[in-house]
Amino acid sequence: MSPTASLLAQRSSRMTASEIRELLKLLDRPGLISFAGGIPNPALFDMEAFQQAYARALGQAKGGRSSLQYSTSEGYLPLRQWIAEHMATKGVRCEPDNILITCGSQQGLDFVGKLLLDPGDTVVTAAPTYLGALQAFNAYEPRYDTLSGNGTANLLRTSAEVHGSRVKLIYLVPDFANPSGATLDLASRERALDIAGELGCLIVEDAAYTALRYDGEDLPPIAALDQKRRGSIEKSLTLYCGTFSKTLSPGLRVGWVCGPKPLLYRLTLAKQAADLHSSTINQVAMHEVALARFDDQVAAARTCYRERRDVMLASLERHAPDGMVWTRPEGGLFVWVTLPEGIDGRRLLERAVDEQNVAFVPGQAFFPDRSGANTLRLSFSLPDPQTIEEGIARLCTVIRSSLPTRR
Amino acid sequence: MSPTASLLAQRSSRMTASEIRELLKLLDRPGLISFAGGIPNPALFDMEAFQQAYARALGQAKGGRSSLQYSTSEGYLPLRQWIAEHMATKGVRCEPDNILITCGSQQGLDFVGKLLLDPGDTVVTAAPTYLGALQAFNAYEPRYDTLSGNGTANLLRTSAEVHGSRVKLIYLVPDFANPSGATLDLASRERALDIAGELGCLIVEDAAYTALRYDGEDLPPIAALDQKRRGSIEKSLTLYCGTFSKTLSPGLRVGWVCGPKPLLYRLTLAKQAADLHSSTINQVAMHEVALARFDDQVAAARTCYRERRDVMLASLERHAPDGMVWTRPEGGLFVWVTLPEGIDGRRLLERAVDEQNVAFVPGQAFFPDRSGANTLRLSFSLPDPQTIEEGIARLCTVIRSSLPTRR
Repeated sequence: MSPTASLLAQRSSRMTASEIRELLKLLDRPGLISFAGGIPNPALFDMEAFQQAYARALGQAKGGRSSLQYSTSEGYLPLRQWIAEHMATKGVRCEPDNILITCGSQQGLDFVGKLLLDPGDTVVTAAPTYLGALQAFNAYEPRYDTLSGNGTANLLRTSAEVHGSRVKLIYLVPDFANPSGATLDLASRERALDIAGELGCLIVEDAAYTALRYDGEDLPPIAALDQKRRGSIEKSLTLYCGTFSKTLSPGLRVGWVCGPKPLLYRLTLAKQAADLHSSTINQVAMHEVALARFDDQVAAARTCYRERRDVMLASLERHAPDGMVWTRPEGGLFVWVTLPEGIDGRRLLERAVDEQNVAFVPGQAFFPDRSGANTLRLSFSLPDPQTIEEGIARLCTVIRSSLPTRR
Repeated sequence: MSPTASLLAQRSSRMTASEIRELLKLLDRPGLISFAGGIPNPALFDMEAFQQAYARALGQAKGGRSSLQYSTSEGYLPLRQWIAEHMATKGVRCEPDNILITCGSQQGLDFVGKLLLDPGDTVVTAAPTYLGALQAFNAYEPRYDTLSGNGTANLLRTSAEVHGSRVKLIYLVPDFANPSGATLDLASRERALDIAGELGCLIVEDAAYTALRYDGEDLPPIAALDQKRRGSIEKSLTLYCGTFSKTLSPGLRVGWVCGPKPLLYRLTLAKQAADLHSSTINQVAMHEVALARFDDQVAAARTCYRERRDVMLASLERHAPDGMVWTRPEGGLFVWVTLPEGIDGRRLLERAVDEQNVAFVPGQAFFPDRSGANTLRLSFSLPDPQTIEEGIARLCTVIRSSLPTRR
């Protein structure tokens, strides 16, 4: 064995490939209708606003040069000020020093894992949950427990203690979660805070989709409920991970973590060690665009995605065979489908691509325990409404022919 | 103790603040001459090239939108192609799949640590060495051994084995190192490869300053010597970390790692877990600027910094008291000063700022074992030549008055 192979062999379990990304590479077929990619619709990007923002960021004699220079690890102060004001509108009162700029909310998840997790520690998640969070945390070799039902805190504690483990954090995507589309109701948010208090652990609130609500009323973030309970963000147990990726653009890699200052200080040191700071010019440009266009862009995204969600749900009503159930998300980008037990999502994907030129993401990868073989994730963000209708019809044809024959 | 404090208390040793960054915050005094910041001179940034590059990246109807979209974890293919050709000019023959785009070379160091280091593993470095590398590796809790002299490999092995440790990597900045300004000669580069082979560990070659040579001939990168020995990059033990931060702009956070594909594949998974991918638009813009301007920009930087280095060295000759020695770097941004034993660089800094309004970085932080209290790092990148002359005169005045009185 070569030295490189031997060095790597020690780590075979630490990081595994993203099945989704690998699958997506196969989806370049002409005419394929894809519900796989959970990415924003690029038609929504405000090209003119970004063109102007970059021109301005590079335009001023002195300011322009500082956009190309090194900057601080915590991030560009005017952007952190904008974010602090934005957080206040959600009921989270904070200062710029409660904000760390990260490369997307993904980097916030990595830093939280790096700061808090030792091998064998327990992370509590929903099941299914965001695959990228599992990937970020997996580098630090935790165990996973799953949150559900009542009396969960004691169950979790017992389960963790049996394994000699400690519950370090609860990871939640409260609004229109990836992949389930589910939203935690107010009582569940309060309950999560009870559990965190009981276990003495942190809550990581991943708010990637929060701005994209199509029906109903906004619910307060867990961070806001936590602050209300404890009187100040400095006493909060919640780290809120936000991002501009689903509202303005993911290509700039600008997200943030908001939380109590002692934690933020430690996360800032992690940022410094990991990549010094986020791109200066992108922070300057994102601030310009957020200042001028955030509300309008969110409104445009809601209109676009609401229509596509409605078409997808109506198409499912029309075409789905018996025994197939799905979520009706109030926002976000995803509908989550559960098929009868025994249908395997990965095999279904192969057939769907081969026979009907339609794609989705099999759900198994989203479960920490690799259950959920009969589930799949559909995203409505990219195809236009007519294509969604056609793609759901094709998908349901494949599903129908995969169902066990009844007698 | 609050739950947050208790969670953090477990980690008090894992990450410590960057003393340099903390010091630099104090250096905002009017009239202060600073040799502290090791950053590029912003007058060298090609504003027009970047303005055009961002306008073009956002200009094309379809291409522009893809600049704002998610992209692949390995990085923008045209940029990886440009880098692969650039590496070939240095004697490292490779393909785009041997290149991972990172957020500066700093992120490459973090990923190498994450992939390879378990707590207690040994990292071998020069002493002094780049503080940011120590910060990146410290998150994974290694021990450090120091490379020097002959027969070092056996010494290192013995030293590591005594501690029940394994030497996992040798970290080197072969050209005009930060902070020492020193360059490894050809024999030392070959010797480093011997040692890595003997220990069965990797070499991490940090090439941050390599383009900035002012005298003499380029030396082959360790990665090129390694490939020559073993016949192919795929058998190489060297990971080469490059960056555009010192040549075109640090504010875009674009660097790269080059190495054998199995390692690159694992580092790409680390990238995906850490932040999904580097900024799309910045990779597109950096590719444009590199294609059009790299050689000219490097030539301009060399001319600018060569003059400043010469002025600093001449000023030191003129003003330095006996007992003070310094390096004569062939490139890079730094001159490294050693004072007589007993003079403390941190106390000297306080006096230098107070009495003469001149600043530098005390050298102790660059030593893994915290020795080197009588050393300091001077950067000549930012002040103009006249200011360098004046600043060195001021600094030497303070040093002279700090020397032990002779009889």
